[in-house]
Amino acid sequence: MKILLKIAYDGSAFLGWQYQPDRPTVVAEMNRAAKDLFGFDCDVTGCSRTDAGVHALGFCATVSERGKIGIETRLSPERIAAALNVRLPDTVAVRSAAFVSDGFHPRYDAVSKTYRYLFALSPEKDPFLAGRAYIPRRRLDGKAVRLMSEAAGYFVGEHDFSSYMNSGSDIRDTVRTVFSADVAEKDGLAVFTVTGNGFLYNMVRIMAGTLLEAGMSKIPPRDVEKITGARDRSAAGKTLPPYALYLVGVDYPADRLIPPDEAGKPIGG
Amino acid sequence: MKILLKIAYDGSAFLGWQYQPDRPTVVAEMNRAAKDLFGFDCDVTGCSRTDAGVHALGFCATVSERGKIGIETRLSPERIAAALNVRLPDTVAVRSAAFVSDGFHPRYDAVSKTYRYLFALSPEKDPFLAGRAYIPRRRLDGKAVRLMSEAAGYFVGEHDFSSYMNSGSDIRDTVRTVFSADVAEKDGLAVFTVTGNGFLYNMVRIMAGTLLEAGMSKIPPRDVEKITGARDRSAAGKTLPPYALYLVGVDYPADRLIPPDEAGKPIGG
Repeated sequence: MKILLKIAYDGSAFLGWQYQPDRPTVVAEMNRAAKDLFGFDCDVTGCSRTDAGVHALGFCATVSERGKIGIETRLSPERIAAALNVRLPDTVAVRSAAFVSDGFHPRYDAVSKTYRYLFALSPEKDPFLAGRAYIPRRRLDGKAVRLMSEAAGYFVGEHDFSSYMNSGSDIRDTVRTVFSADVAEKDGLAVFTVTGNGFLYNMVRIMAGTLLEAGMSKIPPRDVEKITGARDRSAAGKTLPPYALYLVGVDYPADRLIPPDEAGKPIGG
Repeated sequence: MKILLKIAYDGSAFLGWQYQPDRPTVVAEMNRAAKDLFGFDCDVTGCSRTDAGVHALGFCATVSERGKIGIETRLSPERIAAALNVRLPDTVAVRSAAFVSDGFHPRYDAVSKTYRYLFALSPEKDPFLAGRAYIPRRRLDGKAVRLMSEAAGYFVGEHDFSSYMNSGSDIRDTVRTVFSADVAEKDGLAVFTVTGNGFLYNMVRIMAGTLLEAGMSKIPPRDVEKITGARDRSAAGKTLPPYALYLVGVDYPADRLIPPDEAGKPIGG
């Protein structure tokens, strides 16, 4: 079996999830905490890379013994979560743990991911939103938020999203399906929430930059259709900064989440 | 005239407001920014000291030229606020600026101050509340919040608050008036808000520790009356940590806030 963890982290403290020697990364903290708990080196495998500064509310990762396909432990998932938390800095929290089969892969088994991009409504400087939300140059009023949400609606569906991909990855197939996308006002923020079966490099941040142009009335919302159709990065808006982006959660097929001991057991057995 | 500033800051980045040589303090940032803007040394005088880690949403401070009773500038208050903001780190923001008379003192002219202490409702580790709210050991449910608010009600009035004062100040007169005090649930937090004409050393943090005992049903809410009456620090609860405390705002008499040019002018003149 493997241990599947749901992790939240404040990305301000890290250069991203992925390991970089001698740099602060989330995976390095996870490796250190897991080794300290289990007493041997572990492999912590994430559902995706996240760029420096990007936050997570529900990042998913598996833990196995280094060089093995799984891990043996007598600890319950609840104890593992609590024991990792006391070994992790304040900036990283294990929100839950579960056992999954050896074959589970947090990246390849994912059926969808949900991201959020937070825009402050007010252009005013706010120390408590610094590094956590994008501060616009002009106030985003109710009309702006409605325009942004209307524009977001045009992302939904199966499209070639290459207009919303920065260079820096060797992805060939740029077709993805966005299941839902909208912008809603909440607690002084405009919250862009998007769920899809996969995301290209910087895709959500470029979508956010394009929505901001709609909110600022620089483009009509339905131009998003043309921008997508252009399959040309220069047609879309700016890549907004990473610190307002949150990986909210990852969905897996229900049958992949069955604990290994339970798989195949008759109900009630 | 002097410049009166309303300032927000994330206290995590500082060892408090008050100047300490070679240490990160809010006043040192303000002095540096003001000198850079005006081209001469300034005195920035605060409405209070705040301890290391304590946050502010509406800290008040005046700016005058060092060694003088006021300051001369042709900049408008709006320009001063904007120009200071670009010279301050992300962790400090000038929310507004106004001109007041030379005689104005941000501490001695204050008629009341309002503080908030934030309790997370959930005991779960949360990287986004770290350093910003107190995480309780057990969940604070609706009943706990009601007990806390009932207990807070007993703070209201003119009392000797020496039960809620830690040693470390040379204050003799420990009588203060609390105008309002309550605890309300908001966005996953229990928010203790207290307004008074003055606060003793660590008073709000000790009040918060006492409210937590009521919330955890360790004491009935009306015991707060006895605890206050005891005038004995050991009767009250623990001093909760500084990082969940926010100075929300300071009130001044309306006639002290009249810009010097306007004072005495007939209405419409």
